[in-house]
Order: sequence, then C-alpha cells, then structure tokens
Amino acid sequence: MAQLVNPDLVRERSRASFDTGKLTAVLYGGPDEVTRKRRIEALALKDPDYTHEDLNYLCREDQYVAMLKKSLMAARKVRELGLSERDRDSYMDFLLDWRAGAVNLHRTMFTLTLQQQGNQEQRAKWLKLAEDFSILGSYLQTEMGHGTFLRGLETTATYDPSTQEFVLHSPTLTATKWWPGGLGLTVTHGVVMAQLYTQGQCMGPHMFILQLRSLDNHKPLPGIIIGDIGPKYGCNDGDNGFLRFHQVRIPRDNMLMRFAQVAEDGTYSMVLDPRLIYGTMVSMRVRLTEQSNFALARAVTIAVRYSCVRHQSELTPGEPEPQILEYQTQQYKLFPHLAAAYAFWFTVQTLQAHYEQVNSRLQEGDTSGLQEVHALSAGLKAFTSLAAHRGIDECRLACGGHGYSHASGLIYLLTSQAVIVTGEGEATVMLLQLARYLVKCYAKSQAGAKLPSTVSYLQTVQSAAVSGVTARDLNNFDVLTEAYQHRAARLVKDAAEGVRFKVVSEGQSESDAWNNSLVSLVKCAEAHSHFFVVKTFVEAVRRADVDDSARAALISLCQLYALHGICEQAGDFLQHGFLTGPDLPLARSQMCSLLSKVRSDAVPLVDAFDFHDQTLQSVLGRYDGRVYEHLYQWAKKSPLNKAQVHESYYRYLQPFLQQNRAKL
Amino acid sequence: MAQLVNPDLVRERSRASFDTGKLTAVLYGGPDEVTRKRRIEALALKDPDYTHEDLNYLCREDQYVAMLKKSLMAARKVRELGLSERDRDSYMDFLLDWRAGAVNLHRTMFTLTLQQQGNQEQRAKWLKLAEDFSILGSYLQTEMGHGTFLRGLETTATYDPSTQEFVLHSPTLTATKWWPGGLGLTVTHGVVMAQLYTQGQCMGPHMFILQLRSLDNHKPLPGIIIGDIGPKYGCNDGDNGFLRFHQVRIPRDNMLMRFAQVAEDGTYSMVLDPRLIYGTMVSMRVRLTEQSNFALARAVTIAVRYSCVRHQSELTPGEPEPQILEYQTQQYKLFPHLAAAYAFWFTVQTLQAHYEQVNSRLQEGDTSGLQEVHALSAGLKAFTSLAAHRGIDECRLACGGHGYSHASGLIYLLTSQAVIVTGEGEATVMLLQLARYLVKCYAKSQAGAKLPSTVSYLQTVQSAAVSGVTARDLNNFDVLTEAYQHRAARLVKDAAEGVRFKVVSEGQSESDAWNNSLVSLVKCAEAHSHFFVVKTFVEAVRRADVDDSARAALISLCQLYALHGICEQAGDFLQHGFLTGPDLPLARSQMCSLLSKVRSDAVPLVDAFDFHDQTLQSVLGRYDGRVYEHLYQWAKKSPLNKAQVHESYYRYLQPFLQQNRAKL
Repeated sequence: MAQLVNPDLVRERSRASFDTGKLTAVLYGGPDEVTRKRRIEALALKDPDYTHEDLNYLCREDQYVAMLKKSLMAARKVRELGLSERDRDSYMDFLLDWRAGAVNLHRTMFTLTLQQQGNQEQRAKWLKLAEDFSILGSYLQTEMGHGTFLRGLETTATYDPSTQEFVLHSPTLTATKWWPGGLGLTVTHGVVMAQLYTQGQCMGPHMFILQLRSLDNHKPLPGIIIGDIGPKYGCNDGDNGFLRFHQVRIPRDNMLMRFAQVAEDGTYSMVLDPRLIYGTMVSMRVRLTEQSNFALARAVTIAVRYSCVRHQSELTPGEPEPQILEYQTQQYKLFPHLAAAYAFWFTVQTLQAHYEQVNSRLQEGDTSGLQEVHALSAGLKAFTSLAAHRGIDECRLACGGHGYSHASGLIYLLTSQAVIVTGEGEATVMLLQLARYLVKCYAKSQAGAKLPSTVSYLQTVQSAAVSGVTARDLNNFDVLTEAYQHRAARLVKDAAEGVRFKVVSEGQSESDAWNNSLVSLVKCAEAHSHFFVVKTFVEAVRRADVDDSARAALISLCQLYALHGICEQAGDFLQHGFLTGPDLPLARSQMCSLLSKVRSDAVPLVDAFDFHDQTLQSVLGRYDGRVYEHLYQWAKKSPLNKAQVHESYYRYLQPFLQQNRAKL
Repeated sequence: MAQLVNPDLVRERSRASFDTGKLTAVLYGGPDEVTRKRRIEALALKDPDYTHEDLNYLCREDQYVAMLKKSLMAARKVRELGLSERDRDSYMDFLLDWRAGAVNLHRTMFTLTLQQQGNQEQRAKWLKLAEDFSILGSYLQTEMGHGTFLRGLETTATYDPSTQEFVLHSPTLTATKWWPGGLGLTVTHGVVMAQLYTQGQCMGPHMFILQLRSLDNHKPLPGIIIGDIGPKYGCNDGDNGFLRFHQVRIPRDNMLMRFAQVAEDGTYSMVLDPRLIYGTMVSMRVRLTEQSNFALARAVTIAVRYSCVRHQSELTPGEPEPQILEYQTQQYKLFPHLAAAYAFWFTVQTLQAHYEQVNSRLQEGDTSGLQEVHALSAGLKAFTSLAAHRGIDECRLACGGHGYSHASGLIYLLTSQAVIVTGEGEATVMLLQLARYLVKCYAKSQAGAKLPSTVSYLQTVQSAAVSGVTARDLNNFDVLTEAYQHRAARLVKDAAEGVRFKVVSEGQSESDAWNNSLVSLVKCAEAHSHFFVVKTFVEAVRRADVDDSARAALISLCQLYALHGICEQAGDFLQHGFLTGPDLPLARSQMCSLLSKVRSDAVPLVDAFDFHDQTLQSVLGRYDGRVYEHLYQWAKKSPLNKAQVHESYYRYLQPFLQQNRAKL
C-alpha cells in the first residue's frame, strides 16, 4: 500500500518547474554517483541488525553505549561487506553521521596522522592494527589551557638517551589534554601532540603514539589519568575526554618520525619539509566545509518542507490559513540559506578539486600553491561554518515552537555545527590566517609581483574604477561578481593600508598595529571568502550540465545569494560607491522578487539534496510531510510518559498538596 | 581564610576607574534595593535544606524530580519566612530562576489569568486555592497546530444549556494542547483557552478553568489524555506537556467571566472592554524583556571574566601569552553585547514605568496609551530577545571550546533564551504588530494628527533635512540619537509608502500589498525599537545619579552601543545620506577606539551587575576566576566517570577488540 503523502507536499512537487532527479545528479557529480550513494544507504537501512533508535530519549550514558554498539557493528560489517575504500567511508558516514561516537576520530585523525606522519616502519606496524580495529585510537592535541594556538601546548615529551625513551608529562593542570573524542571511556591508544625536548632544547610540538589503556582489562596504564569531560551542548553520545601524564615513558620509536627524528643519542634532525603536513590540515578543512554545507542543506530541507505543511494565521481575511511559506518574512528567513546551501555545495567541489591538484604536486615535494589553498581553506572553513551555524539556527527559529523540540532534528544539527565553528581552528583565528595571506599578497602586488589565481584580483585594486551600476543590472552575474570582487579588493586594501598607517604614521609597533586592525582584517577575509563563493556559484551555474528549466532555478538561487549579501552588507557596497543610496531600495525589492520566484520551486529544490529521512531524523522534515501524527507518536515515547502517574508524585507532590489542603 | 582570587581578576578590579558598588546601586534603583536583593539571596543561599545540585549531570527525568523537589520546598519556605509579596517573588525568582519547573507557570500565568479574567466569586474561590498551593495549575493556550495566532485555536468549549455545562473537546489531532509548562506530570488544574460556542455561534477564544487530574491519585480525569512532549533544546527540567479533551464537561461557572459571560440559557454578553486584557499581555512582555536583559548580562559577565583569566597565543613575539581580552577581535565580540546589556537594563526600567502609568489609568477604565505601549512592548520584546539570543551565542563562541561545555553556564542561558524569542508571541509576529502601529501612526500624521510621545518623531519625517554629519560628531549623543531617529523615520516612511504604492500603482489588494512588504515592515519595526533603546540609554546616562568616573564609563558604553549599530547597519545610514562613504571607515575606527576605552573597565562593568556565582552557575564566570581547577573538579563528577572501566567495555568493546586481535 502506498504511503500517503501530505497533499500540500504532493502539490508542491507536482508543480516543480524542473526534473528534481537531474538536479540531484548535478549535485552529486552524475547519475552513477547518485546510484552509488543510494546503494550504500540501502545497505545500511535494510540491515535488520541496526535498530536506528532515537538517541534523544536516552540519557547521556545510554546514548554513549548505543553509539558504541552501533559503531562497532558498523566497523565489523564494513569488512564483511567487502566494500571499496570509498564505499566503506560512505557507509560509515551514513551510519554514524558526524556523531562523536567511539570510532569517528579513530577512522579520521588517528589513522590520518599515522599515515601522514609515521615513517615506513611505523605505518607498517600501527596502521595495520588501526585498520583491523585491533586497537582504537584518539587524537590528543587540545589541552585545557590551549586550543588553536599549538605553540602554547604544555605537554612535554623529553628524550632520555640513557634509556632511549621519551618521557611524556603534564607539567601543569592546564596541560591536561582536553576534548579528544573517544578518549574518555573508549580508546586504547592515542597520538599525542607534545613539546619535544632533547639535549636540553625545546624543538616545538611533535606527534607521538602510545598505548593508553591495558589491552587486558582496559584500565589506564600507570602514570595516566583519564576521564570523561562531562555534559556538553551537543555530542553527548560521545566520550570526549581528558588525560594527564605523570612521567610516562615510551620507546624512542613511538615518536612519529616521517618529518623529523631524534637519533639514539638525542640528536634532532629534520627529514622532510614540515610544510608538507599542511596538506593534512587543508584536507581536514575541506572536510569540515563539506560538513557545514551538508548540515545547512539538511536544516533547510527540514524547515522548507515543514513550512509547506504548516498553516497559520491569515493573509487575506476570511480565506483559509495559508502555508507559512507564503509569508514573505518566512521566505526571507529560509531562502537565502537555501541559496547558501547550493552555493556552498559547489564551493566544496571547487575547493576539493583545488586541494587535490595541490596535493598531487605536494606528493612530489612541490609546495607551490600550498600557501594559497591553505589560506583559502582556512577562510572558507570559517566563513561557511559560521554561515551554516547561523542558518541552521534561523531555520530552527523559523519552525517556531516545534523547532525547539528534539523531534525537529534541528537541535542535533545546530549543536553539532557549533563544534565545526570552533573545532580544528577557531573561526576568527582561521579568518586571520587568510587575512595575513591577503595582506601579504596585496603588498607583493604593490611591489609588482604576479599573484596566484584566487587572489590575482588584488592586482587591479588601484586601477579599478568604481563602475556605478544601476540596480537594474543587479541580476547580471558579471555585475554581481564584480561587486563582490570590488568590495573584497577595497577591504583588503583598507586593512593592509590601515596596518601600514599605524606603523608608519602613528609609530605603533608591527604587532600593535596588527592587533589594532584585527576587526578590519577579519572583515577583509570574510569579504574575500564571500567573493570566492559568489564567483564559484556563478561559474558552477554557467557550467552545470542541466536543461534550461533547472538552470533557471539555479540562476534565481545564485542571484538571490549574491543580492541578499549585498543588502545585508549594504554599507560596504555603498561605502565605495559601487551602489548609491537610491539603488538600495531597488536592490531590496529585486531581492524580494527573487524570493517569490524561488518560492514555487522550494520543495523540489530541497528534495534535490536527496537526504533520506533516516539522515534528517526529523519529524518536521519528513519526506511524506506527515508531521503532526508523527510528532504525537514521538512525544508519547518520551521516557517521562512511562507511567500514568510519575513516581515523584508519591514522594513529593502528594504530601505537599495534602498538607496544604489540610490547612484550609 | 580568605578565598584566593585569580591575580588577573585582582588586577582588573584594582584598576577600576569607578566605584563598582555605586554603579550597582544605579542599576538596581538605589543602595537600599541592592541591600534588599542581597538579603533575599542570602536567605536562599544560607539555607542548608537546599542542595543547589548541578542539574547538568542528571538525566532529564532526574532533572525534573530535582526541580520539583526544590520548587515545592521553596513554595513551603516562602510562606514560613513570612516575606512580603515582592520579597516572595524575588526569593522564588532567585531560587528557581526561569527554569521550567513545576510551579513557575502556576505562579505566573495561571495565577495572573485567574486574577485578571476571573470575576469576584471566581477569584475568591480559585485564587485562594492557588496561592495556598492546594492546587497547582498550568496555562493551556498553544496547540500542536497553532501558536501565536490565537484565532486559529481549535479546542472548543460548547455550552449545553440543558445541563448548564461547557463541553471541552479537541476536535482534531492538531487541537492537542502542546507546550504548557508543568502540564506533563505535575499540575492538577489548568486554565484553558478554547473557542466558545453558544447558541450555535462561535464567540472566539475564551478562558476556562478546570481540574485535570484526580486530587486523590493524580490520574488524569475521564476524557483527558495528558503526557510529556519529550526532550527539547533546553528546559529539560520541565515537563512541558500535551493534553487532549474528549467531550469533557465542566460547570458553567468555570468560564472566567470578568470580561464576558454566558448566561444560564446560553446568552452571551460582554461585560468589560476586552482591550483591558491587553494589560496582562503587556506586563508579560515587559517581564520577558527583563529576562532577556538578565540573560544577556549574565552571559557577558561570564565571557568577560573568562577572557581575562584565559591567556592564549601572542600579540608580540617573545612576550608571554596575553589575556584573550587584549585582542581587538575579542573586544569586538563581547563589548557591544556588554553595552547592549546596559542599554536594555535602562530600557526595561523605562518600559516598566511606561506600562505602570498606562496600567493605572487602565484600572480606571481609561485605555489611552494602551495601543502605544502594547505596540512598543511587542517590538521591544522581539528586539531585545533576538539581540540577547545572538549575544549569548556570541559570548559562548568567544569562550572557545570551554564555551561548549555545560560547565560554562552559557548553554543553559542560550537554550532558555531561545524560548523567549519564540514564546509568548513569536519575534517576527511581534515586530509586525509594532509595524502595523507605526504605519498607522505615519498615515495619521500625514493627515495632520498629533502622535503619542514615542512615535511623535514620525511627524517630522517629511521636513527632516539630512543634516550630513562628519564622523567627528559621532560621539555626540544628540547626533547619535538623531541618526537613529532619522533612520527609523525614513524606514517607516519607506515601508508605509511601499504598501500604498503596491495598492495604488500596482493594483495589489491590501493584504497582498501588506504581505509583499513584510521584509521592509519588519525592518522599520526593528529600526524604531533600536531608536527607542538608543534614546533611552542616552537619557539614562545623562540622568544617572553617579559621579563623573562612573558616568564616563557609561558614556563610553552608550557611544559604543550606538556606533556599533551604525557600523553594523551602515547601509541604512548611508542610504539616506546621514553618513557618506568616507565617514564609514572613520566611524569604524572610532568604534574601535571605544573598544579599548571599555577594555580597562570591562571586569568592573560586569561586576556591577552583581550576579551571584549561584546565579551564574558557571565555572568560567566565577567571581574568583579560579576556572581551571574548578573545570577539572566539575569534569571529574561526570556520571560517565563513576567507574574506571565503563560496563559497556565488557559487553561490547572487549569482545570486539579480542576478536579483531585474534584474526591477526
């Protein structure tokens, strides 16, 4: 029997102006890729061994246990199924999502670090163990007192040539390792970042691998104190942990020695250009940019579908209550994020391709392009994660009261996304990394040097005449791109010259001048990232292998993304004369026209993301739109409903009420 | 032995440019009020019967039970202590905060509704029971399918003259009452909003009181299905509930009849002007504005103190790691919210006074000024709750990784604040209520009418010449106030004329024209609210009974609040020519100068809010700044640390690892 679909969603889909499947193919890189994706998902969904229970009902401890069980089962199955490496990753990603479960850090940062930073013997020994899941590992970098600033880490690894061992130690409370996923209760091993001391000298942070818990009884090894760091905003199914070392000795060859080594007598030597490690960092940032994009796309899917099912209030007196997506304000809340989700989707693809190009050169020792992609990925990780975080929260708010319930699926998305803003490089620090690169490039171009492609526009900043558009042109892709390029160029110039002015004319030290310019430096990095996204989106829409109807939908989204940014940041565009005062209301009204254009295809546009209901985990965002009956079913399963009268009544409420009534 | 205080905080406090206590007195309305506040707090803190445990470690069910226990104890003590009504409220507020515990809705909306909408006999009967806590009540308005739009509520109360009863019924699934606090497990009674049907006619939503659960065994009465609605973003210590009626009969005099009544034969009649109820709504909105303000002030207190204790990275190579509050970006993240917390503090006082004035007239049946304060309070509730919500989240992000932990206290503030944005009138709907009022006033002033004081500036919009300031004037209070007034006036004019243009020139219906203008209508309501806050802040600073040093600190905050808004919304100020392009970088640089000015007094400025550590519930925001040792202690208490090896190891992890090792 066919599943009934909410008639509002049936109507929305029936009037789609394009073939949803064709757009899905564009997003995933062709129809074969869509087939592959769905095949993997079906493998996980049809397997009766998984229960896919709703973690929201469970207390933190039970959430942890449920995810541990599921993770270990997935790790076992993934081998039994004999999947390719890529399918294996997709299978695990689909099943475990980004939940902070036991094996997520094991199969990413732990394994990646061994691969990238271990020498041949180390890889042979440890990678095999890790890939077979004979050990489980975490990545121990952050400390209680230090996050993104690695040079400040306090954990020490002091080489003792007399025994040929390193001594790992936490010299202070703030040196306690803090946050590593899986560390609290689960992992047996860890790769640890510590300040290397040898022959009386500190050589800076290096990586070491060591066993943390007994393989017989799982107790922490001598000199190691481990625990869970307590309840968090999100990720409560994970056992993020803390760890303190008290003079823990490990063999010399537990230092990961691909890039640098310590000889038996303690002599330190570099082996490879340490910049090669940057490749790992860039790849993590690309991955996080992708996660931000998926999270935003999911949130928008949920909010758009729900906004078509929900009816409320009145537009025209006497008429039935309209779908809430009919309200211009609801469109204004959601569609810019829908457009951003498409923009970021193509941005991730372009960034990924850019990284792969640089990385393949890197494998041959050629570091050209590394700085550029390193700066770009830092900026985009920050820019997209912030935008997605804000966007998810606006989607949540746009769902009203029901958006506040865990039934919405939006709470999970929001609290997971918050990690990406701060984790693996805090957003402001990342933007300042990009800003430093931009300021350097600007100075180079002033000195006549040629710049890499993504920043070459900085060369033209001096000559760029303000072209003064009329708002009529503001749907033109070239004009929109130029607007963002112009804004980025001027803001980089302003920031760079602001720093110089403080040094030269005000006599500030370089570091004071830099610190006193941080706000404008962050702003220029955001503007550069924004320009990159707009330009990439425009190029993707022009290039996309779709028919006219789908392209028309993409064009509207792209125009909306760019115009919305102009209206939101109007000061920047007016400041430099790219727009004039009277243009602004016209730009706003054009943006509003785009909202109604996007309205008619909103549901097909989110359907095209092809998220399975199991991925969305949202009563509000269900494909079939049967929101209310499932919300009611969901609530009834709340653990607080297990008895008709809760036991606390007998203990507290009944005596209280009886006593008060007796007094009457 | 004196408690050690972190030396960074000692230094911050020792160099305060003003007397913190004097500023506290200004905020609370005089030294006597501060003494009163602290006396009440001490009553609660020194009482050994309260355990003040950390709810974060508990699962939802245990959180509920802990809060139930505490609430009932507080309700008992409050009578034993023989406090005045005002002290009683302060005592309960301090102890229970805004936690969604069992008695919070009882002592606010339930009691308030009986007071305001019950006739004399009803008040005599029910209020006594409620005040003695012989019954516990909830306020049942929202339904699964309807929130802010009351006319859409589906629950019916049909009068049956043959038995002189009302029949309460939930005709559809979406009519299920949804969200009422305390409903899920706790309350015995409820006031219910339902569509009144009598003599075959629907008379719109009216209030009824009825018993929901047996007073003997707490079981739901016949025809009533009750339950908890499941886990939420926050408020998980509360049992927000659902309720369905199946033909439940209640006596005629259970309808609250102060404003309207149904006679024995079913004849409906109005008794009092129903607009008088608006007073209740306004008072709730004033209260919510105050809550937003407190929440933001607490978050800023936590983030500012932590930012003085936390050292990270480097400003000048080779120097020790600076306090993170030294970074311009950190100041830029926090100080505008610090300034907003002060701005809103004074705004609440002004709004409160305004409401009390109108309300005292209202008690004599005079409704003049009601519309104005109703619109203003709607706008300010939305404006401040959105700003506080964003501000708290930025404070959380500014605390980096530790801001993500429940130890920060910021998660509780954030998730509680999110309720205020949506609850008791969704923010966008509230802003549109204000916009409707503004547009109406604008039209009236065009027709030559005189306008009430808070909107009288709309009369000048036509004549207001753009005065064209130089950025040098932007620290001048009159210029700043004028800038915001000018912006609000122009945006109201644009919005109002936009609607008219769509009707007159484009031939749209009134309702289409309105809907197609919602974005600009929301914008003008925000601009009006923003103007009101700036103006109020300026007046409060001028009027404040403080010495020059404290006034200087307030002046910087007020300038920062206004200038930050101008930089953030620069488009609006440039669009109408109040600023020119070249002014903008100057305005930004002036804002940055204010950041460093505020920096030196940042800790004294948050200390002046006088929040007790028990109120902040934050390891990061402790008055003594001993963050790290308490963070470690806090984490060790995590329930996941109860055993050195978690039981799940034996069940899942050990077999998994052993099996994999065996295969090697």
